[in-house]
Amino acid sequence: MRMYDIINKKKHGIVLTQEEMAFWVQGFAEGNISDYQAAALLMAIYFQGLSIDETSSLTSSMIDSGETIDLSRVPGIKGDKHSTGGVGDKTTLVLAPLLASMGITVAKMSGRGLGHTGGTLDKLESIPGFQVDLSPEEFMKQVENIGVAIVGQTRNLVPADKKIYALRDVTATVDSVPLIAASVMSKKLAAGADIIVLDVKFGSGAFMKTRPEAENLARMMVDIGKKKGKKMAAILTGMETPLGYAVGNALEVKEAIHVLQGEGPQDLRELSVYLTGITLWLAGKVSDAAKGRVQAEKHLDDGSALEKFRELIAAQHGNPQVIYDESLFPEGKFRYSLLADQDGYLGSMDTEGIGLAAMKLGAGRSKKEDLIDPAAGIIFYKKTGDRIRKGETIAMLHGNNEEQIDEGRDFLKKSLTLQQEAKAIPSLIDDLVII
Amino acid sequence: MRMYDIINKKKHGIVLTQEEMAFWVQGFAEGNISDYQAAALLMAIYFQGLSIDETSSLTSSMIDSGETIDLSRVPGIKGDKHSTGGVGDKTTLVLAPLLASMGITVAKMSGRGLGHTGGTLDKLESIPGFQVDLSPEEFMKQVENIGVAIVGQTRNLVPADKKIYALRDVTATVDSVPLIAASVMSKKLAAGADIIVLDVKFGSGAFMKTRPEAENLARMMVDIGKKKGKKMAAILTGMETPLGYAVGNALEVKEAIHVLQGEGPQDLRELSVYLTGITLWLAGKVSDAAKGRVQAEKHLDDGSALEKFRELIAAQHGNPQVIYDESLFPEGKFRYSLLADQDGYLGSMDTEGIGLAAMKLGAGRSKKEDLIDPAAGIIFYKKTGDRIRKGETIAMLHGNNEEQIDEGRDFLKKSLTLQQEAKAIPSLIDDLVII
Repeated sequence: MRMYDIINKKKHGIVLTQEEMAFWVQGFAEGNISDYQAAALLMAIYFQGLSIDETSSLTSSMIDSGETIDLSRVPGIKGDKHSTGGVGDKTTLVLAPLLASMGITVAKMSGRGLGHTGGTLDKLESIPGFQVDLSPEEFMKQVENIGVAIVGQTRNLVPADKKIYALRDVTATVDSVPLIAASVMSKKLAAGADIIVLDVKFGSGAFMKTRPEAENLARMMVDIGKKKGKKMAAILTGMETPLGYAVGNALEVKEAIHVLQGEGPQDLRELSVYLTGITLWLAGKVSDAAKGRVQAEKHLDDGSALEKFRELIAAQHGNPQVIYDESLFPEGKFRYSLLADQDGYLGSMDTEGIGLAAMKLGAGRSKKEDLIDPAAGIIFYKKTGDRIRKGETIAMLHGNNEEQIDEGRDFLKKSLTLQQEAKAIPSLIDDLVII
Repeated sequence: MRMYDIINKKKHGIVLTQEEMAFWVQGFAEGNISDYQAAALLMAIYFQGLSIDETSSLTSSMIDSGETIDLSRVPGIKGDKHSTGGVGDKTTLVLAPLLASMGITVAKMSGRGLGHTGGTLDKLESIPGFQVDLSPEEFMKQVENIGVAIVGQTRNLVPADKKIYALRDVTATVDSVPLIAASVMSKKLAAGADIIVLDVKFGSGAFMKTRPEAENLARMMVDIGKKKGKKMAAILTGMETPLGYAVGNALEVKEAIHVLQGEGPQDLRELSVYLTGITLWLAGKVSDAAKGRVQAEKHLDDGSALEKFRELIAAQHGNPQVIYDESLFPEGKFRYSLLADQDGYLGSMDTEGIGLAAMKLGAGRSKKEDLIDPAAGIIFYKKTGDRIRKGETIAMLHGNNEEQIDEGRDFLKKSLTLQQEAKAIPSLIDDLVII
């Protein structure tokens, strides 16, 4: 078998066999296939696509490149969730303790942020003392003890994905549906959960710009998971506004805590409850997702999800007092109010621009090596459709560096439009549930 | 300017500017742009194509990567010819002395063979003593003295092409019309001739499988040359049979000598005369190509082209006696006659298969490092359309290794079909002349 022939086949749109997929993934992961041949193949895949079977083979081959997590010694049903990346999306912070409080075990491996979207690990690290690097033994023990843990991916979880993603990142081959599907699903499948629920975003700031593209990606990921014997569901959510009102690490954790306290923004609560309802239904704990949603709301309102979050923070060496005392979170030295210069309605919010504005403030990374400022970010006071009067605060920028705040403000201004008529607020969650 | 953005633009089918083309070619040639980014761009170009302007920019950028040959001190009109590679194509060996004998200077840089097609340099080296590596001074002096020289490309002629071609060769991006056009034309333009005549092959054994593809490539190359102020023409020729009856280095030189002696196979003579007619017309030496052809035939028949070939051989340290005494060429120790096992007509000849058979005999290289056996090759006694009786010799294989002859024979057998009805012989030269 030769890599040249594999590239040439795919270039001509011919379906690759499981053996061919395994050959190149293994060879590339082990350094026996060159970057340039892999780059040529990735670009050919961008143009020719991959069938479900090919994407499934790719996913399996990527998983085989490293270790997988065996959760079989953990009793009960293990659930996992993945979002394709949204600005202000702190759903994992609500969902993980909420599910755990309802008897679904969440042994979650999360990522860091890059570019305009934030990462769950960065958010959690804004909690003083919180550790995301647990040893495999600590991780398993915590999952067994309290039913929830959120850690960074172990170095050897799908190493082929790390290598392939790094190459895609510099060769303009990130935006390929099958490559995204294989990347996401290889990590989810290697992490060992029984149930995987996917939140696929679409809109200007998302990878998938349109709903049909998002649906296509969602169906592909659901099919791959089902082929591996997992219980799968995917929902589509719009990304026309940030989720909630907070963008930035400490700011987002505080907002997630509000939801766990039975309060907080409606959209974040709604999405968390919706995903929980589906998970409970897939787990066989309720007869339909709507019943699951009712139970989820109860667990948010009676404090049991919040108590589980307290346990999670304590187990991972964070200061659990943060859930009662927000002043324990890092605070920015500077705040800047973005005021409306005229009357009107808030029109479109360019979520990618907002994400970049937060990045400029210090809340995100433009390069992997960049340091995060946990206190930096944006709190919105208005969202799409809201009436605004001249002089009112639209958003508050938080940061520790005046220059960065100036830069972030310029980005933020460009991302918001004021208009004379109220814009219809697009619904967050699409009705379609792909199973 | 970033290579990532250039890849991404081309991936989306956006036209690249001259600056962008120069940026990546120069960067890649100098080692500042990685192989994997260049490979991704080449595959994107394969799928999205390049406009004439883009291909022209690419060609210029490639030329700028190295030195160019300045033929201005050589008096008269300088002509050059390129063939896209045919099995048994020894036209340069006839054309170069023929043109020189008619007052067109031929300062030619040729290549070596790889795969199923042979190279002019390898053929010339089968002449005892012949040197293809002349110093630039020797080269220019010889061109001034006798009006013709055929040498290898200098190391610094279009180094970007060498690097890009090597990458295309391993990333399945060779068969891209604009990339072929830029590769050919960069070398032709850098070599400094005033007139460039192209012979673009099509058919099973050619790069271009169909006539429309060949026409497309030919038009692109002609347009690029004209943009650079060159007098250009291209013809299309079928590659349904080998050109002439000989395939293999010494065997082909002997056949070329026959044509220079006013004899030899009709197709080789016809093609040489045809290309010469066009060149003379472009040079303004005749009022139309047909008149040029008549003159060319005269120079073949009166021995003046042969005399020029003798001068060429002598100037490049070869033994000029070979043109009178064929026994001075290396001879294979073994010969094997391929006999017809039934009556019939010779049907199709798979030229690629025939080229590979010759390669197996030792006449070509499968890898750059392979050594050539100058004596090895095939002489055909029959070509497509010929009547064959059981037991007659179809072809004679020449070689120095019995195992290689066995292998070559198996390849050759598979490349020929015998049939019960005469197949129409496709005409070699298409009527279209692209100028």
